Amino acid sequence: MARSLRVDGGRPEVRVKVIDADVHPAPRSFAELRERVPEPWRSRNWPDQVFDAVETPTYVAPGKAQRRDAYPPGGGPPCSDPLFAEQQLFRDAGVDYAILLPLTVRPVPNPEHEAAVCAATNSWLADTWLSAYNHHDRYRGALRVCSGDPGLAVKEIERWAGHPHFVEIMLVAYTRAPFGQPHYHPILAAAVKHELPIVVHVNRAAGMGLLTPVGFASYFIEHHSLYSLLYATHLTSLIFEGAFEKFPTLKVVFAEGGFSWIVPLLWRLDNLWAEARSETPLVKRRPSEYVHDHVRFTSQPIEEPTDASRLSHVLEWADASHLLMFSTDYPHWDFDDPMRVARQLPAEMRERILRDNALALYGLPTTRRDHGSA
Amino acid sequence: MARSLRVDGGRPEVRVKVIDADVHPAPRSFAELRERVPEPWRSRNWPDQVFDAVETPTYVAPGKAQRRDAYPPGGGPPCSDPLFAEQQLFRDAGVDYAILLPLTVRPVPNPEHEAAVCAATNSWLADTWLSAYNHHDRYRGALRVCSGDPGLAVKEIERWAGHPHFVEIMLVAYTRAPFGQPHYHPILAAAVKHELPIVVHVNRAAGMGLLTPVGFASYFIEHHSLYSLLYATHLTSLIFEGAFEKFPTLKVVFAEGGFSWIVPLLWRLDNLWAEARSETPLVKRRPSEYVHDHVRFTSQPIEEPTDASRLSHVLEWADASHLLMFSTDYPHWDFDDPMRVARQLPAEMRERILRDNALALYGLPTTRRDHGSA
Repeated sequence: MARSLRVDGGRPEVRVKVIDADVHPAPRSFAELRERVPEPWRSRNWPDQVFDAVETPTYVAPGKAQRRDAYPPGGGPPCSDPLFAEQQLFRDAGVDYAILLPLTVRPVPNPEHEAAVCAATNSWLADTWLSAYNHHDRYRGALRVCSGDPGLAVKEIERWAGHPHFVEIMLVAYTRAPFGQPHYHPILAAAVKHELPIVVHVNRAAGMGLLTPVGFASYFIEHHSLYSLLYATHLTSLIFEGAFEKFPTLKVVFAEGGFSWIVPLLWRLDNLWAEARSETPLVKRRPSEYVHDHVRFTSQPIEEPTDASRLSHVLEWADASHLLMFSTDYPHWDFDDPMRVARQLPAEMRERILRDNALALYGLPTTRRDHGSA
Repeated sequence: MARSLRVDGGRPEVRVKVIDADVHPAPRSFAELRERVPEPWRSRNWPDQVFDAVETPTYVAPGKAQRRDAYPPGGGPPCSDPLFAEQQLFRDAGVDYAILLPLTVRPVPNPEHEAAVCAATNSWLADTWLSAYNHHDRYRGALRVCSGDPGLAVKEIERWAGHPHFVEIMLVAYTRAPFGQPHYHPILAAAVKHELPIVVHVNRAAGMGLLTPVGFASYFIEHHSLYSLLYATHLTSLIFEGAFEKFPTLKVVFAEGGFSWIVPLLWRLDNLWAEARSETPLVKRRPSEYVHDHVRFTSQPIEEPTDASRLSHVLEWADASHLLMFSTDYPHWDFDDPMRVARQLPAEMRERILRDNALALYGLPTTRRDHGSA
């Protein structure tokens, strides 16, 4: 193997080239999750779609959001069969480490209920993808917590504190208030206490979770087009509420929301801060400086201008060398292949985006064991 | 005068150089509007802030949103004294023609009430800035209509149809549904019938009008930072609801919402349309093609990257030569001076942005009479 570095107790090590910051494992069946839901919720009658990772109660993406070739030959939803996932993710796509973000907790109005499904999800991920399926040690996970009840969220964080494979805390982007507001500060404090980044990711639900700033859109294509609006609002809130001053070691990852929109947004934020900062005296630095020190973005879906040279400029202006982490969004329909994305990236920032930024954020090793699978 | 072209009946003509697509005249007092409000609304007890152009019932911008030097020496709110406005807008800033967008109708929950204040505003603008104050013929106006009740909006459009100085129909960006939805089609149809563009502009109000996609923000600086989210949602809706197919001559202006955000948004829309267009079969063309043919943006507040060369790239990618119309936002705090903006614009697109795009859209003359005021 060209990438083998050394032999350690018979196990060759290979240098890590690609870290995938956004992969979505699914349970093989509802039962896998349901049996882990704490009482009294397990015995109650509640709709399957709450933790349905496949069917969606609302806007339907092409192919129900799945890559058509990602359904395991033996059955079950995409990314539910560990061997088939290893084939597609590790061998076909060349990913070395993957960060797993389960989409098994759709937001529900009752936060106690949502917190129970989060607890089940975390138990399930710990029992399967982070242990039984993780013999190769190439998976890390995001811990699901319910942002609607920060007390329950903190309890769940404390329950898993010190687990070697949960490397971040996941919040769903659909909320009733932006993430900088004091309501969320107990969650931010717990994240900082345990040195875990917060990752914000979409996980569609019905109802208010599909709001735009001017009511509700009609089509999936509108909703998907406007993902970045959610992230822009949370980012602006975190900055101007002073979250990065109150929590100087806080790290936030915005996953699957795009990133080129930060260029015009940060121009605007920096200018407005210069002119109108008397309103927010806690905010000591230019907004773009907080982003540089505290915020990261995942790459999928990589922006694809008609003229590819434009992407290089935007990557430079968006400070992608520091801010961007590669992701595939496996097993979803709009999957990005690492080799194809690598060709689109300027050479001088390729390794940082494909590997180094995630390696630094999650404290991953620079090598991994070689199982003959790379 | 260097710009004088010819003498016609004793009146020299000067070539137009600057058209300002976003100026906000105000009544000298509430009474000017109130006396024009139709009954039964005039006699009812309702809050002044509904048509208060100065005080704001919510987030307060620096200097209450006004340029500090724009208060007329003789009293009254900024841009309420025609002589003082001529001094600042025509002589100091060098504007040749100005499009007037009155901010005297804050959205209210009752659309009949809002429509009554729209009617008063239109009567007031027609009686003052578009006639008594318009001896120089350098003002054109936007007709205020209430988007919450399209029937009343169409009635108001018909009332003024053929008026020589109303050149567009103004809708407030804060709504309960995006503008592409069928609810609004009667307004779009009336606009097309009378060959009037729609202009979308913010006009803050309390309540739902201040929504973000994830609830309510805390600060003015957040709200102002995120103006573009409203516009992005309306634009995406107009495209994917097929409004530009249903109304092939429809023109829409997005005023004061920025424009560089359209670059990443249109990359995303074009890509999603290519992949997911089966959902919206009415949409025949790439989203960016509809924007090119149907949509314009005003320039203020012009985006100001730290590295000015980036603005040139973004202007090129955003097709600013075709899409952008200069505006000052006079008399507001974040006023853009034409000469300063002109220096930031690439030479090859300067005249189009400062003059030609607005000239074509509004059918303005290429010269104006010289009153010794230029």
